[in-house]
Amino acid sequence: MKVLAIIVAAGQGVRMGAGRPKAYLELEGRTLLERSLSPFLSHPRVERVVAATPDPDETRRILGGAAGRAVLVRGGATRQESVLCALRAAPSGAEEVILVHDAARPLVSRELIDAVLVAAERDGAAVPGLVPPDTVKQADGTGGIAATLDRDRLRLAQTPQGFRGDLLREAYARAERDGFQGTDDASVVERTGRKVTLVEGSPRNIKITTAVDLALAQAILAREDSSA
Amino acid sequence: MKVLAIIVAAGQGVRMGAGRPKAYLELEGRTLLERSLSPFLSHPRVERVVAATPDPDETRRILGGAAGRAVLVRGGATRQESVLCALRAAPSGAEEVILVHDAARPLVSRELIDAVLVAAERDGAAVPGLVPPDTVKQADGTGGIAATLDRDRLRLAQTPQGFRGDLLREAYARAERDGFQGTDDASVVERTGRKVTLVEGSPRNIKITTAVDLALAQAILAREDSSA
Repeated sequence: MKVLAIIVAAGQGVRMGAGRPKAYLELEGRTLLERSLSPFLSHPRVERVVAATPDPDETRRILGGAAGRAVLVRGGATRQESVLCALRAAPSGAEEVILVHDAARPLVSRELIDAVLVAAERDGAAVPGLVPPDTVKQADGTGGIAATLDRDRLRLAQTPQGFRGDLLREAYARAERDGFQGTDDASVVERTGRKVTLVEGSPRNIKITTAVDLALAQAILAREDSSA
Repeated sequence: MKVLAIIVAAGQGVRMGAGRPKAYLELEGRTLLERSLSPFLSHPRVERVVAATPDPDETRRILGGAAGRAVLVRGGATRQESVLCALRAAPSGAEEVILVHDAARPLVSRELIDAVLVAAERDGAAVPGLVPPDTVKQADGTGGIAATLDRDRLRLAQTPQGFRGDLLREAYARAERDGFQGTDDASVVERTGRKVTLVEGSPRNIKITTAVDLALAQAILAREDSSA
């Protein structure tokens, strides 16, 4: 089964305060984008890799040989537009499964990619998620708590998220027609009524949003080096 | 207004895999419990501090002078029982506001304590919370996603949580009568129908659950040292 991987790296990194796109930040000598691309580029089942980045020319210069066979396209104003840009750059229908991954998760493992891929092939749509470590409250919109949610029924969604190609393309086309903006790919698919399978996420697969998250990623890598 | 602080440190740290209660783990040379106690012991408005720990004698030996004026009591089998043990050790009604804090959050700041204290005095009950950085899904109970929740309406609850003393004592008494077990103090109060105010939590005020969290806390302290 042919697999297309889309890496979304269009964020400007405003919350990081680094003054440059987050994907170009370095983590132990390699950019977040390079680290996020690498496990897909080296995956034996991933036939094509498309990365949506703020500036493809600059990206190629920064990545050099690490871009490998990845196709670089310019992203859009939102995450969802960037995924659409990447989908358009990949000839339709050639692939059967599409994995969409955020470059802000540079510690994604081969094991997690495989778990999502297997579930997406089997069920059509799969998302990794973790039970929140904290108690989760629903706000009432006027400064107070409306309810405490059942944490065991909640999942913090991660990427990669995997989908049958036709299903993802159709869901994105429909979202564009309707002007729907989701915060992840699964939400775009869910609204078509399609069931999305949950797979167990990885605590290591953190999202880099702030400078503290980058420090955490460094600490995770350092721990792994010292125990290797 | 008199303030009682309760520090809950009864967890066995199973998920940490350290083979000892989590509160006794060290972070840059000071135990998590010492770090969690310290900002309450030094707070000019906190009159009394009660810590519920797995073994008060061992705790006193480990903390030494850092226990200061804290009253150490033996905790219970659950977080909720531990809070009850601490409430019973503090003569009822002497205080007007009670702050309850988890020893697993050793990086709590004076600023956050003050924000919770002010809101609890004003509104009777206050909880710090953060909008989740990830997309949050509701699981359907059969391996799939039931819905994507509106992240802006969700808060990951932190501690300290603050309450008017009579209100917290009454809520805990009622929970004990009803056999209700909550994952935090606010949930015990919410079920009495009392409105709980949300205040802005702090990204720095992380909960230490796993060894990775401990590495993150070290990274946060190291960053602050280097920028000081």
